[in-house]
Amino acid sequence: MSIITLTSDFGNKDYAVAAVKARLFSLKSDLSIVDISHEIAPYQVVEAAFIVNAVYSQFPSKSIHIIGVDAEQGNAQKHLIVQIDDQIFIGADNGFFSLLQSVSPIQKIIEIKHPLSENSIFPMKDVFCEIAVKIAQQVPLEKFGKTIQTVKEWKQINPDLSNSNEIIGHIVYVDRFGNLITDISKTLFQQKVQNKKFEIKASSSKINKVYNKYDDFAVTESSVEIIKNKAGKAMAVFNSLDLLEIALYKSNPLHGGSASILLGLDVGDSIRIICD
Amino acid sequence: MSIITLTSDFGNKDYAVAAVKARLFSLKSDLSIVDISHEIAPYQVVEAAFIVNAVYSQFPSKSIHIIGVDAEQGNAQKHLIVQIDDQIFIGADNGFFSLLQSVSPIQKIIEIKHPLSENSIFPMKDVFCEIAVKIAQQVPLEKFGKTIQTVKEWKQINPDLSNSNEIIGHIVYVDRFGNLITDISKTLFQQKVQNKKFEIKASSSKINKVYNKYDDFAVTESSVEIIKNKAGKAMAVFNSLDLLEIALYKSNPLHGGSASILLGLDVGDSIRIICD
Amino acid sequence: MSIITLTSDFGNKDYAVAAVKARLFSLKSDLSIVDISHEIAPYQVVEAAFIVNAVYSQFPSKSIHIIGVDAEQGNAQKHLIVQIDDQIFIGADNGFFSLLQSVSPIQKIIEIKHPLSENSIFPMKDVFCEIAVKIAQQVPLEKFGKTIQTVKEWKQINPDLSNSNEIIGHIVYVDRFGNLITDISKTLFQQKVQNKKFEIKASSSKINKVYNKYDDFAVTESSVEIIKNKAGKAMAVFNSLDLLEIALYKSNPLHGGSASILLGLDVGDSIRIICD
Repeated sequence: MSIITLTSDFGNKDYAVAAVKARLFSLKSDLSIVDISHEIAPYQVVEAAFIVNAVYSQFPSKSIHIIGVDAEQGNAQKHLIVQIDDQIFIGADNGFFSLLQSVSPIQKIIEIKHPLSENSIFPMKDVFCEIAVKIAQQVPLEKFGKTIQTVKEWKQINPDLSNSNEIIGHIVYVDRFGNLITDISKTLFQQKVQNKKFEIKASSSKINKVYNKYDDFAVTESSVEIIKNKAGKAMAVFNSLDLLEIALYKSNPLHGGSASILLGLDVGDSIRIICD
Repeated sequence: MSIITLTSDFGNKDYAVAAVKARLFSLKSDLSIVDISHEIAPYQVVEAAFIVNAVYSQFPSKSIHIIGVDAEQGNAQKHLIVQIDDQIFIGADNGFFSLLQSVSPIQKIIEIKHPLSENSIFPMKDVFCEIAVKIAQQVPLEKFGKTIQTVKEWKQINPDLSNSNEIIGHIVYVDRFGNLITDISKTLFQQKVQNKKFEIKASSSKINKVYNKYDDFAVTESSVEIIKNKAGKAMAVFNSLDLLEIALYKSNPLHGGSASILLGLDVGDSIRIICD
Repeated sequence: MSIITLTSDFGNKDYAVAAVKARLFSLKSDLSIVDISHEIAPYQVVEAAFIVNAVYSQFPSKSIHIIGVDAEQGNAQKHLIVQIDDQIFIGADNGFFSLLQSVSPIQKIIEIKHPLSENSIFPMKDVFCEIAVKIAQQVPLEKFGKTIQTVKEWKQINPDLSNSNEIIGHIVYVDRFGNLITDISKTLFQQKVQNKKFEIKASSSKINKVYNKYDDFAVTESSVEIIKNKAGKAMAVFNSLDLLEIALYKSNPLHGGSASILLGLDVGDSIRIICD
């Protein structure tokens, strides 16, 4: 059974997501539809790309991913089918695909030729669903339009490595726990820091150790300190995406306690790592 | 595989929606369950009807729609099965069905006779699931109770057309983007306005053009103005439901910018269209 | 088709839930995945147990429930498979299972031996999915580790019955409507109160009757009072879980009106029932 995933900024209350699912099921009854997220901030293509990047490669090969963020055609913004890592993406050429490209090279780009592309106010339903279902039915990608060579580039800020003893990274996502996910990968960190002493400066917080899971913070510190006292303390971890993350241990942002709130940091803010 | 959709005001955190799905799967293992929305405001039958109206006809014929908003029986409020457009709805006779009727005539109304209807505090689970699954198994609707002729009427406010050069419409829904969806259809608008000049008055905002998609607002205006300057400006559009909608171009209500917030308008407020 | 349910504190925006589903579908394509809730408050094992307790027994026998709350292994916290009521649970030994046990005795406990258990920062994806899918493929539970006898106990507060004419219960959950669900079961209430007069004291509110559904509050009162006047009044009901619940009739917490807000009560606060 083909998997079609959905990502959008429509939220989970309105009718839009149900309209997309109704359209898909009216075209093909045996589908596994998986919601990646519909809580993308309105028009935030970068946020959508971060979330989709975090999961797409874990889906079975040839899964079809529909992206309904900033999806209208117009003003030179095309509708595309893009194949990466043997996964199929359908969405608008708004920069999203260049952010996926940063992980793995694009295998194929098709500029969609569809009668409703130009004038639809809701292309996720009117255009992308039909194409997704046809792809699930083994229609070759080339049937949907001409092959092109490039996608629109989104200027992405990368970690600044110009200083030999320093990484200046950035917060790229704040999760439900208020933890701060940065663009500093474990690989980059280890290349730069090696066996040297280091200090991570995140706002007022200074951190000298990076853990591999949250509970290691509580367990590996001296037994003098009671584990419970660790709750709410800032720590650094390589998270499940192998990205450096600044967290508060067992914090609950619903009650005001989170790395984002207590350190006053949000997406786009910088994090410095200084080594000897 | 039969499609059963769910609409409720239970939210996505509590146990209620999972209890309904557990009940459905315990009765029949091969079902496609589609959540329309569980974020309906508590007891807001009109909001539920707006959202269900927006999507139901796009589902495959004979889909079964369970409505779990204000669903208790009692005080002369019955449980009904209603067939419209070859779609099947199961819910309480609280006015919801009269709001669906406004789109298309009702084909059949069955007053449910079920041992748990009268006393259940959770009829969506205790009554509607069982009936939905039996309908999916081809049990005729007439087996569930007697045919009746009318549903409870909800007094609906319609656009006021009493003045020959004016439409007084109303905001019927505010979506995740804070856009204001009105009860003025494209058809009604075109009949009344024809080729005349018009002005849409929405609070302090005056609008003289209605676009067919959001991006047309940015593209079709004079090239003197930079497109980016359009962000946050009020515009009018015929949306995917063919209803007149007042929007802010690429607004983000999460940061305070939305048509609803900036114009100070909400559901029930009026919008005037004056033509020469 | 095997049912796998998911419960977590990951929320519905982030990538984590989609990562779990991607992993499941990459291991087995024909699965019915049901989200119980992903809006558990961060690390709130007791809240997770309340919600899972409310629904698990309604799923088909042999359903598999993955619990992704406070799930890291470490600090003597093991990963377990627990069988109760012929339902299978997979999660961390953080007290959650002892709260399930309060409803029904545990049939089997397996301490999971998995190469990724000890070091994974995301065991719901890295460990539990693989085990869930193998259980769905009929692998016996004993293949995943050794049988043990006990789970970690969570000290649970129970209703205080030490005074012969009194029940001191507690609020255990506040639902989307702001209704206050207590730990006083219908059975306990009836045993203690019998035919005596009683008064339920919830903050400033005094209630002398418990209804069996919400609408009975409006219907069974004297006809002198208009039903509409009941909206927003405090009432008591035995809810669908057969627990005593303090509610405001047809309240809407989105507009500030709920039992929780107006009575100033939240999880952990006590409710007293005094009988003659």
